[in-house]
Amino acid sequence: MKDSSKVGVGVIGTGRIGTVHIKHLCQNIPNAEVLSICSLDTKIAKTLSERYYIPQITTHFNQLLDNSEIDAVVVASSTDTHIEICQAAANARKHIFCEKPIALELKAIDDTLSVVKESGVKLQVGFNRRFDVNFLRLQELIRKGEIGVPHILRITSRDPSPPPIEYLKVSGGIFLDMTIHDFDMARFLIGDEIDEIYAVGNVNIDPEIGQVGDFDTAVITLRFKNGILGTIDNSRQAVYGYDQRVEVFGSKGMVSVGNSVPDTITSTLKNGSITSLPQHFFIERYKQAYLLEMESFIQSIIVDTKPKVTGKDGKIPIQIGYAALKSIEENRPVSLSEIQ
Amino acid sequence: MKDSSKVGVGVIGTGRIGTVHIKHLCQNIPNAEVLSICSLDTKIAKTLSERYYIPQITTHFNQLLDNSEIDAVVVASSTDTHIEICQAAANARKHIFCEKPIALELKAIDDTLSVVKESGVKLQVGFNRRFDVNFLRLQELIRKGEIGVPHILRITSRDPSPPPIEYLKVSGGIFLDMTIHDFDMARFLIGDEIDEIYAVGNVNIDPEIGQVGDFDTAVITLRFKNGILGTIDNSRQAVYGYDQRVEVFGSKGMVSVGNSVPDTITSTLKNGSITSLPQHFFIERYKQAYLLEMESFIQSIIVDTKPKVTGKDGKIPIQIGYAALKSIEENRPVSLSEIQ
Amino acid sequence: MKDSSKVGVGVIGTGRIGTVHIKHLCQNIPNAEVLSICSLDTKIAKTLSERYYIPQITTHFNQLLDNSEIDAVVVASSTDTHIEICQAAANARKHIFCEKPIALELKAIDDTLSVVKESGVKLQVGFNRRFDVNFLRLQELIRKGEIGVPHILRITSRDPSPPPIEYLKVSGGIFLDMTIHDFDMARFLIGDEIDEIYAVGNVNIDPEIGQVGDFDTAVITLRFKNGILGTIDNSRQAVYGYDQRVEVFGSKGMVSVGNSVPDTITSTLKNGSITSLPQHFFIERYKQAYLLEMESFIQSIIVDTKPKVTGKDGKIPIQIGYAALKSIEENRPVSLSEIQ
Amino acid sequence: MKDSSKVGVGVIGTGRIGTVHIKHLCQNIPNAEVLSICSLDTKIAKTLSERYYIPQITTHFNQLLDNSEIDAVVVASSTDTHIEICQAAANARKHIFCEKPIALELKAIDDTLSVVKESGVKLQVGFNRRFDVNFLRLQELIRKGEIGVPHILRITSRDPSPPPIEYLKVSGGIFLDMTIHDFDMARFLIGDEIDEIYAVGNVNIDPEIGQVGDFDTAVITLRFKNGILGTIDNSRQAVYGYDQRVEVFGSKGMVSVGNSVPDTITSTLKNGSITSLPQHFFIERYKQAYLLEMESFIQSIIVDTKPKVTGKDGKIPIQIGYAALKSIEENRPVSLSEIQ
Repeated sequence: MKDSSKVGVGVIGTGRIGTVHIKHLCQNIPNAEVLSICSLDTKIAKTLSERYYIPQITTHFNQLLDNSEIDAVVVASSTDTHIEICQAAANARKHIFCEKPIALELKAIDDTLSVVKESGVKLQVGFNRRFDVNFLRLQELIRKGEIGVPHILRITSRDPSPPPIEYLKVSGGIFLDMTIHDFDMARFLIGDEIDEIYAVGNVNIDPEIGQVGDFDTAVITLRFKNGILGTIDNSRQAVYGYDQRVEVFGSKGMVSVGNSVPDTITSTLKNGSITSLPQHFFIERYKQAYLLEMESFIQSIIVDTKPKVTGKDGKIPIQIGYAALKSIEENRPVSLSEIQ
Repeated sequence: MKDSSKVGVGVIGTGRIGTVHIKHLCQNIPNAEVLSICSLDTKIAKTLSERYYIPQITTHFNQLLDNSEIDAVVVASSTDTHIEICQAAANARKHIFCEKPIALELKAIDDTLSVVKESGVKLQVGFNRRFDVNFLRLQELIRKGEIGVPHILRITSRDPSPPPIEYLKVSGGIFLDMTIHDFDMARFLIGDEIDEIYAVGNVNIDPEIGQVGDFDTAVITLRFKNGILGTIDNSRQAVYGYDQRVEVFGSKGMVSVGNSVPDTITSTLKNGSITSLPQHFFIERYKQAYLLEMESFIQSIIVDTKPKVTGKDGKIPIQIGYAALKSIEENRPVSLSEIQ
Repeated sequence: MKDSSKVGVGVIGTGRIGTVHIKHLCQNIPNAEVLSICSLDTKIAKTLSERYYIPQITTHFNQLLDNSEIDAVVVASSTDTHIEICQAAANARKHIFCEKPIALELKAIDDTLSVVKESGVKLQVGFNRRFDVNFLRLQELIRKGEIGVPHILRITSRDPSPPPIEYLKVSGGIFLDMTIHDFDMARFLIGDEIDEIYAVGNVNIDPEIGQVGDFDTAVITLRFKNGILGTIDNSRQAVYGYDQRVEVFGSKGMVSVGNSVPDTITSTLKNGSITSLPQHFFIERYKQAYLLEMESFIQSIIVDTKPKVTGKDGKIPIQIGYAALKSIEENRPVSLSEIQ
Repeated sequence: MKDSSKVGVGVIGTGRIGTVHIKHLCQNIPNAEVLSICSLDTKIAKTLSERYYIPQITTHFNQLLDNSEIDAVVVASSTDTHIEICQAAANARKHIFCEKPIALELKAIDDTLSVVKESGVKLQVGFNRRFDVNFLRLQELIRKGEIGVPHILRITSRDPSPPPIEYLKVSGGIFLDMTIHDFDMARFLIGDEIDEIYAVGNVNIDPEIGQVGDFDTAVITLRFKNGILGTIDNSRQAVYGYDQRVEVFGSKGMVSVGNSVPDTITSTLKNGSITSLPQHFFIERYKQAYLLEMESFIQSIIVDTKPKVTGKDGKIPIQIGYAALKSIEENRPVSLSEIQ
């Protein structure tokens, strides 16, 4: 029997991120209770169900949505299923936490946001970096005027190694798959919309990436509506680990976030003074952010507030990604208003 | 019914540290199962029991020791109860994790270690810092010869604020209460025994600390049996937070551990470049170390190995502490052999 | 009587930089001897002549060029005089060290480079940053393959405060006056030519800067002929001091140069851990670089080698600057081939 | 003919430090004029005289002292000559800058200070580190109360490599030769006298150092008259370069000085993030401090003020050094009052 003081949750998808969410909901968020998981992989589902005492396993999300004790769903299945699941969940009056991206087509996103809006359920999109303790504090410092009026935003965002080519083929390309997080970060930190974007790209790491029409290296110029200028640089392969730095420069100074390192050891030897490399990848770097975003989602249901990352926040970075693609194809700056 | 593949654990004491251990055993250590908690505070015990589905609550440790499904006990009650509980637990053939110090009297420790030895149970003492990821790696680097032969050890260990005077009165003084961790760290990192110690102290922070015969500031010189020299400095009050740094210098260089900070923000403003202060105190700084020490204890039971912190490791820092006290009273270096 | 083993030097212009060069030539470069200075400010000239035992003071550069003991001239007068002086000096068979920019018009630069070439004298242009110990080592590390193949170049270059509006009016604008150094740095570090450039700008600091048609904030995208991507950000006003950082990212890692600070003090107080701000401006930050560039010039005369910064190196950044201007005017990427 | 507005200086000794002083006096201190140098090495003297236009070369300091245009002498000859020269200089009414130590015998120092006092000339002792920009600012911060009341002083002072054994034999040992600078630094920073000292030492680097009765590694505890505690650690051989760090901890926080590095390069590669090692040795690290101490000496003559490092400042570190020696011999804390 479900505890009525808790938010009943169903989790759809038990891949890497789905499993992280299940663990957090079961172990670290006392106000939530996972009542059902939906997975095509029955073995993993069974293991998770036993480890975390989850009463129901389903293989189709409709079964999960039929569970009347479920108040909210976490959509962590593959991107191509998000639209259908989100719309069905909204119609079933379940609040929705949906992993990014909602979809790769703007039209499909718009349709889904409409259905969600009509149903009145909450929708939070999984831009986890907004909940990273560093970026959260950075945003607060900017908002409070620590650096006065912002003038320049710099984002460095580099992965330790590229995903498999098969994944890249369906990913929508570097801007929709990887830079999308940086576009979200830019909007989050500056608190304004991007007006125009200019992107350049190159293939340095793996010629196959070029053969599927993608880039592994990119530099992007942003111009916000309020005139603030920004620049993002991306690489699919930083051999030294996950490189996630941001700097915001303004009329009263500069605030920056550096990389997180796993320890504070310094070795000072004959050939130099050596410190540890950044944490390897997003699972390590954003470990706590994944927990905090889910806590925030559950809390927004309990106290009935707007989620911290809205449907609109889920849509606009996709739009910016298409502008970046158009910019690189036509080698010119592209206004966001050109992308609908 | 207890899961026979798991280590059944009883936890005695539900104060700050006891609660941390219960949480870790219940949430993060799948091989352990907390079957009973013993507490004088029935309200806290009830809350913990409900939150973590702990089947038994007791008010006297003997009841807990009578539980035949319990394989091991965690002793996190007040220091003056450790001896009696540890001896009873050993006689009841329960493995023991005992918070430091085992006792403040060397004779009582010796007696207890004898009882433990005869009973054949395992005993691990709660020197949590040995499990801190930074110090663990530091020790490995030294052991592997990264800095060649060590010559000098420097430990800085400062608390953010002194404990209440009432606590200080029964604590055994700064060397037995606070520096004891640094003495353990010194032995752990250098892998050798201290031969002689010289201590000086002062009262800077609160005259009341002096009135109860204690010091709030201390500088200690260590000489190891193998000739390595060491120095420790302690303060009961670093206004900028918990200061826990170690540096080991040797024939091939130097390795050091710095303070852990809660974020990687840098603000560069008109008046300077500002970074965040160290984590506030031991609960934050050694959060993960508390989990790792308990995992290590459970693991030592399962695979039947010697605990990573032995009874001897629990005794010797107390002995060093008495040598420090004698040194400060007589203002002269004191050999460890003088303290029995 | 001039020492025949030394290079006889005449210095034209006794402003801030001219004075720095005179000091270095007289005090720190034993192989050089300043024989004449040319200045419109007779008072300063007299003071300098007395302090450094300089035998001749002139008010017109022709008098200086007539001095047969002079082997080389340092041109540190105002930009609009460079062309005439450089051509006259070349015709008088004097080697030339010319402050940047040679001129603001490409045609005038080309003409001057022709005259210099025909005369056979050496010409070194004053891109002092190439001689900064940090950037020098950075360039060597890149050249030696420390980071493998470079993929991304990031330059941050911000002044502590804008120059007077009267100066800005004749400066050629931010790209020709300020970014020109970064264009040179980009070419120096990457060892390849820029193919295309895209620039955006804004007026954040002083509306007057906008009124004279200039920008005080800029973000620039570079694409090199070999495909390497780069980004530069500029501001005329960093309240925390001169901000001069470079990062080069490549297939085997990343090398970066940070800001130089005047001391290594850290204050760890209740409100944060505070370190010192960067050195105030170019005179402080590039103090030693100004000496090293002059030593290098004198040395290139003595051992008869090509100067480390050639006439071509003096011209191309101007060309890039015009491309940046065109880019910002037409809001599109501009190929260097469009600028002649 | 001497310029009457300048301080006429004679320099005695043209070894490494003497040569540095001559260079500074001739090139960088316009208010001083070197009129004579005294050296047993006529070749070096001739070279220096020619390079810096020094009119007189002498082989005995008395000839130099006879020069009536000389107002002040710089004593940079070997330690065993200091006493005789200083006394003769005082009797000749020349102000004195004397390299440390004035002498190794306290009685000889006392006698010399008496002669100096009677003569009325100024005496500055060459504790150059007081003029290091970092330590100077550290001392000011402490004096201004940045850290409130100081509680603990930590000095790390390690040389890159030991001097030749022949030198060590006559050096007075590590405490009089090397730690003497740290004793001076301790007094300078804390602004109080040391009351008691405890020293331990070891021979780690070269057994020959032990054979001549000296140590190459030492840890020292200081207790100041006002109760402040201090600790110094020394090594004759830090393979990573000259290690000169100081930290002062007090009621309101902590200030520290780190090592100076030759550049700001960071290489972030597969095996770690690597920064540059400290400057190699004192000539590099204290380059500017040597200039500033000499400027300060000349200035104290011109404006007739007390030198920044007095005869007493020259004596007390020697006294502390003897206390350290006695402490290590008798393995007990030694009061400064025991050393006369």
